[in-house]
Amino acid sequence: MTITDRPAIPTARFAERLERAAAATEAGGLAAMLVGVGSDLRYLTGYEALPLERLTLLVIRPGTPPMLVVPRLERAAAEAGVRTAIDIRTWDETDDPYVLAVDGIARSGRMAVSDTMLAMHLLRIQAALGAGPTYVPASTILSELRMIKDADEIELLRRAAHAADRVVAAIAAGPLVGRSEVDVSREVRDRLIDEGHDTAVFAIVASGPNSASPHHDASERVIQAGEPIVLDIGGTLGGYGSDITRTLWVSGRDDMAPPAPRFAELFAVLRDAQALATAAVRPGVACQAIDAAARDPIGAAGHGDAFFHRTGHGIGLDGHEDPYLVAGNALHLRPGMAFSVEPGIYYPGDYGARIEDIVVCGDDGPIVLNEAPRDLAVVPG
Amino acid sequence: MTITDRPAIPTARFAERLERAAAATEAGGLAAMLVGVGSDLRYLTGYEALPLERLTLLVIRPGTPPMLVVPRLERAAAEAGVRTAIDIRTWDETDDPYVLAVDGIARSGRMAVSDTMLAMHLLRIQAALGAGPTYVPASTILSELRMIKDADEIELLRRAAHAADRVVAAIAAGPLVGRSEVDVSREVRDRLIDEGHDTAVFAIVASGPNSASPHHDASERVIQAGEPIVLDIGGTLGGYGSDITRTLWVSGRDDMAPPAPRFAELFAVLRDAQALATAAVRPGVACQAIDAAARDPIGAAGHGDAFFHRTGHGIGLDGHEDPYLVAGNALHLRPGMAFSVEPGIYYPGDYGARIEDIVVCGDDGPIVLNEAPRDLAVVPG
Repeated sequence: MTITDRPAIPTARFAERLERAAAATEAGGLAAMLVGVGSDLRYLTGYEALPLERLTLLVIRPGTPPMLVVPRLERAAAEAGVRTAIDIRTWDETDDPYVLAVDGIARSGRMAVSDTMLAMHLLRIQAALGAGPTYVPASTILSELRMIKDADEIELLRRAAHAADRVVAAIAAGPLVGRSEVDVSREVRDRLIDEGHDTAVFAIVASGPNSASPHHDASERVIQAGEPIVLDIGGTLGGYGSDITRTLWVSGRDDMAPPAPRFAELFAVLRDAQALATAAVRPGVACQAIDAAARDPIGAAGHGDAFFHRTGHGIGLDGHEDPYLVAGNALHLRPGMAFSVEPGIYYPGDYGARIEDIVVCGDDGPIVLNEAPRDLAVVPG
Repeated sequence: MTITDRPAIPTARFAERLERAAAATEAGGLAAMLVGVGSDLRYLTGYEALPLERLTLLVIRPGTPPMLVVPRLERAAAEAGVRTAIDIRTWDETDDPYVLAVDGIARSGRMAVSDTMLAMHLLRIQAALGAGPTYVPASTILSELRMIKDADEIELLRRAAHAADRVVAAIAAGPLVGRSEVDVSREVRDRLIDEGHDTAVFAIVASGPNSASPHHDASERVIQAGEPIVLDIGGTLGGYGSDITRTLWVSGRDDMAPPAPRFAELFAVLRDAQALATAAVRPGVACQAIDAAARDPIGAAGHGDAFFHRTGHGIGLDGHEDPYLVAGNALHLRPGMAFSVEPGIYYPGDYGARIEDIVVCGDDGPIVLNEAPRDLAVVPG
């Protein structure tokens, strides 16, 4: 996809990132870092490679310039996609690319492997390197780099968030009664693209009892008056993710079916919990403390068992990445970290609700990227 | 996605597939087969799981019923998605899922790992199982099963092919001159969905010199009269892939710019080569012989170096899967194998052409699923 009228990561940034990754590889005493197709590769080089069965691999070794191994068929795409100087080596259809990839790599020591490399490639690399080496996830190094977003990345996340805000507003304007979830879901996807997204990745429309299933997608179920909808949508813009959840209440014609009192009560608890968790964001606070800030008031209101997922996930080139806001994660927030804050309350068979924003940890507190209203949106129609 | 008015794989088939996989695991002397999110999991259980950082894993061990480990958050989705009786075990956000996953698995012997499992999961599984076991790709077993399509799978491939045929016909009806590649590409994606695809996976529109880059996607380049377009499009329908390539020539208003003679000559060579390779398909013929059947006439016409990719790839739940039609692959075709036959000729900086059909190996010869005309489509406008 060609990016035209939107901010992009400056070219010089990729050389800096590669240098930092190489320095961290050396400092960590690693023999090599092996980066397959995925966001790590895009982060380090700018190259958004296709996830193919043919091996594409970035090899970073201390003291050697990085090398990108690509199928000959992808050479043109790689040259166009890579945004920094890098040695590109191609292999032909009848070559063994794994021999080429491990050329010059020590047969011992620790190797870092990118988290999203496919097992089929890792097993072949492990076979080519023999029994000597051990392997660790490259995220132990790369997450440290990728977690801290720079100003250009935050701007892309902000644009993505605002685009998603506009889609939520359009859907909340109705009408919804009588439409199937998949029909609304398709409108969401079309609107995400119309609002500038590269891709529409998900468009959860969970109505009535489906709202109690956090990862319900969208079904043929027809939306009725007098029920909630959990709308959880997102995609990528300039490679960076949007991810917003709002809970709607469909009140029908003439607002005949206003929010059920029990649901409104539950939603008020959730609304407060989401606000408290967001307000708790600042440098030095542990990820698990943000989770607790959402979880404690929900538990105090008697809904503890109904909030059975973590409070949030990092977001950037991946929709889910470090840092995770979950009990047990003692990692301290630092300025530039970006993540969702998304508590939910679910009663299977009955209904559920969730509110989600993308939040950046600023120097003094939270920077909330989404601007769509968080109150229960009542949709009369 | 809900599948309504289209054929689906009968429920009983999944139990059969799981049984065959378990039997092959035992017969192969494997300690376990570990299947992560991806087409292998969908093939064996029907469950189209989300590719998440949270572990979802199907564990097949000889003498034990299969077990599916899923995050608690995905339990409802797994129960809805799995189409056969299977023991589903969930883990909570603060549990270590790898401990649960390897429970009861021997700490030695050979483990088969699904090809598309993410390295982040494989490395954690390897760590949980210790230094004893060795690992092999599960495709050594599962490809044998998945390569041979049954009648229901072939019907889905046929429906997908015919839907893609209709999209090609609509694009070849023009107009094309003055439109950008991305504009046409978007029309392709919309039409694939309108024609019943679940997803539009790719929509290559490679015009003029871009036609010489086999994996060019679609750019802002504006299509001109007097140049070729390689149109290579596909998606999934009921989970099964479509993938068709046709080469068009844009002749402009009043056919002012008919096909250049040199291009028409090159195309005629390609057309014959694609027909010869297709005609060579029958049980017992080696995959590399199909490749040679396309490659030899192209070489004889002096274009050998300009055909630098394999002749085809298998297709099914994955867009690219076994069998691959490539030099060095001595695998013999068997009835039910489905694959692309797609030679191409490329002159970088100048132009290129490719023709691709999806072909099933029948009992007596090729069954060509695509029906769109293969001749150079001249588009006057």
